[in-house]
Amino acid sequence: MAEPDFTEDPHRRYNPLKDEWVLVSPHRNKRPWQGQTEETASDEKPAHDPDCFLCSGNTRVNGVVNPTYEGPFVFPNDFPALLSDTTKGKTGDDPLFRAETARGTARVICFSERHDLTLPELPRESIRRVIDLWAEQLEELGKNHDWVAIFENKGAVMGCSNPHPHGQIWASDFIPNEVAREDHCQRAYLQENNANLLVTYAARESADGARTVVENDHWIAVVPYWAIWPFETMVLPKRHVLRLTDLTGAERDALGDLLKRLCTRYDNLFKTEFPYTMGWHGAPMNAGDHGHWQLHAHFYPPLLRSATVRKFMVGYEMLSEAQRDLTAETAAERLRAQSEVHYKMGPE
Amino acid sequence: MAEPDFTEDPHRRYNPLKDEWVLVSPHRNKRPWQGQTEETASDEKPAHDPDCFLCSGNTRVNGVVNPTYEGPFVFPNDFPALLSDTTKGKTGDDPLFRAETARGTARVICFSERHDLTLPELPRESIRRVIDLWAEQLEELGKNHDWVAIFENKGAVMGCSNPHPHGQIWASDFIPNEVAREDHCQRAYLQENNANLLVTYAARESADGARTVVENDHWIAVVPYWAIWPFETMVLPKRHVLRLTDLTGAERDALGDLLKRLCTRYDNLFKTEFPYTMGWHGAPMNAGDHGHWQLHAHFYPPLLRSATVRKFMVGYEMLSEAQRDLTAETAAERLRAQSEVHYKMGPE
Ligand SMILES: O=P(O)(O)O[C@H]1O[C@H](CO)[C@@H](O)[C@H](O)[C@H]1O
Ligand SMILES: O=P(O)(O)O[C@H]1O[C@H](CO)[C@@H](O)[C@H](O)[C@H]1O
Repeated sequence: MAEPDFTEDPHRRYNPLKDEWVLVSPHRNKRPWQGQTEETASDEKPAHDPDCFLCSGNTRVNGVVNPTYEGPFVFPNDFPALLSDTTKGKTGDDPLFRAETARGTARVICFSERHDLTLPELPRESIRRVIDLWAEQLEELGKNHDWVAIFENKGAVMGCSNPHPHGQIWASDFIPNEVAREDHCQRAYLQENNANLLVTYAARESADGARTVVENDHWIAVVPYWAIWPFETMVLPKRHVLRLTDLTGAERDALGDLLKRLCTRYDNLFKTEFPYTMGWHGAPMNAGDHGHWQLHAHFYPPLLRSATVRKFMVGYEMLSEAQRDLTAETAAERLRAQSEVHYKMGPE
Repeated sequence: MAEPDFTEDPHRRYNPLKDEWVLVSPHRNKRPWQGQTEETASDEKPAHDPDCFLCSGNTRVNGVVNPTYEGPFVFPNDFPALLSDTTKGKTGDDPLFRAETARGTARVICFSERHDLTLPELPRESIRRVIDLWAEQLEELGKNHDWVAIFENKGAVMGCSNPHPHGQIWASDFIPNEVAREDHCQRAYLQENNANLLVTYAARESADGARTVVENDHWIAVVPYWAIWPFETMVLPKRHVLRLTDLTGAERDALGDLLKRLCTRYDNLFKTEFPYTMGWHGAPMNAGDHGHWQLHAHFYPPLLRSATVRKFMVGYEMLSEAQRDLTAETAAERLRAQSEVHYKMGPE
């Protein structure tokens, strides 16, 4: 009897972290593209831009003046989606019309004073300072919030409205959907398999290698078996770690190394400032046992074929199920084939 | 004690159809936008474009010649994500690396021979013909597929790669994520409340009116209480209907009327061919009782403030939870304030 060929035949893969599927159509790679193309970021950016709201010493949109800063700089989001003093309350029992108020804090983190240097263009020591600031913010905001979202939207195509390299922090008094879902799945996996889902997964991927993009002593970056975005990756520590705050100094240095190498490969793939949404998922800060959790970062990059042709998650994806053309293994192979010397920066 | 004000205070709303939440930040409406802007569709399109792969009598990208057609025209997708003859098979029991092959059929539906007329610009009789074709396709493909996805990606910003107004059909031998989720939630609601979720919801919305956009004897279009996209709507029949195939002639005519009025309001809102992903969710075709289902269509439009400024579902949304600024009630009010005379077409 004929055997299916998972490198060529249309198939679905299961995501155990979210309990959902992705449709993979490897045979569809050759489809021509005549739709929308994206703008690319300008390669000509000054180290300091007098018109940038985020640059050191400049005045923000609300009139506040930024200090003269060097290294990472954190400040309150001038248009926060969450406020810290919202009156607490909820609607009644009606199952069709349920709402409850939400409280939180939103901040912005400039990665450095340099307007022109994105994460992979910064030296490892500067990336390490960003990692330390992430951990400090989690420490501080985690004291009175159940969840602290630490993320970066990179590139105009990912809704980033200011080219100065920066990330965001949204801390909330609730556990958001995506985190609740991963919490549920990791807990169920531990119960059923008596093993931590992502700790096991990282070890399996490291041993296999087919989906590995970058690896060092403490970390591994893989295109997950169940990736939905063409060049999606997940960054995982090799030991069991609940949160960014738990990382040792050596692990933080190693994370800086891994992020630099991963993002350099991303940039080199299409010779562009590779856009993405990335963010950290660690154990929430609410009470209870979190042993089923494993810290990880997701990178969700939209580009598909070039600096200007993206994957659209629309129609079928929004209403039925995520769909991809190239397999996770092919994507990993293409990222592994890239140099770790940045196309713009040259050798370190 | 102070009471929360759900028209102004940040809050979360619960979506009972998907068992998830959306973060609503009404106070954040005034945020300035300096990020990416979108291209708008050209208003100058010919009735027949000799270079269009979808126009009547033209040659498609793969060399096949379209017949000379009038009215809606369905043909096989030249780059289908699903194939009908894939070898069946699945991976072993490993919970971390699970895959199974998928079979299906993908088709394209041109709404009419007119290259220049989108759904709301077609006369009601022509929209009725599209509805009849949707039902016929469901009838035919539903015989040997568990799920038939009927949808439209409208506008380059929604990944539509050809301006000739058209939709798609992807039929599969599996129930995709989104449908499985709605199946689960509708079933649970029936069990817990002894009532059909969406039949009850439509009646409640019709009685309330705050989120209603368009209504006629047989249908209602509302901005759902739990909408995530700024001007998202759900189209619901007023009686309990499982699938498009079950609609009477009068209900099909009324649906044509409702779609024309809804999409005209959409176009008038920002004086543009309003982009969106829309699609039908009806009871799946697999065996079993489907009494917990209610037929409905979702419209997911990306625009936020103008023809060129969209909402980005990125960072926080992808990694934590969907977020919106204007409330569902405000969005419905703005759509209700639009005329039902199309800005380009004038009075019928
Ligand atoms: O089939 P099309 O129109 O070329 O492609 C579009 O719709 C598909 C179904 O929603 C998506 O998978 C593609 O990403 C999108 O570009
Ligand atoms: O806060 P920003 O960068 O202005 O806005 C961006 O990120 C937010 C958080 O992911 C999103 O809600 C916005 O839609 C997006 O444009």
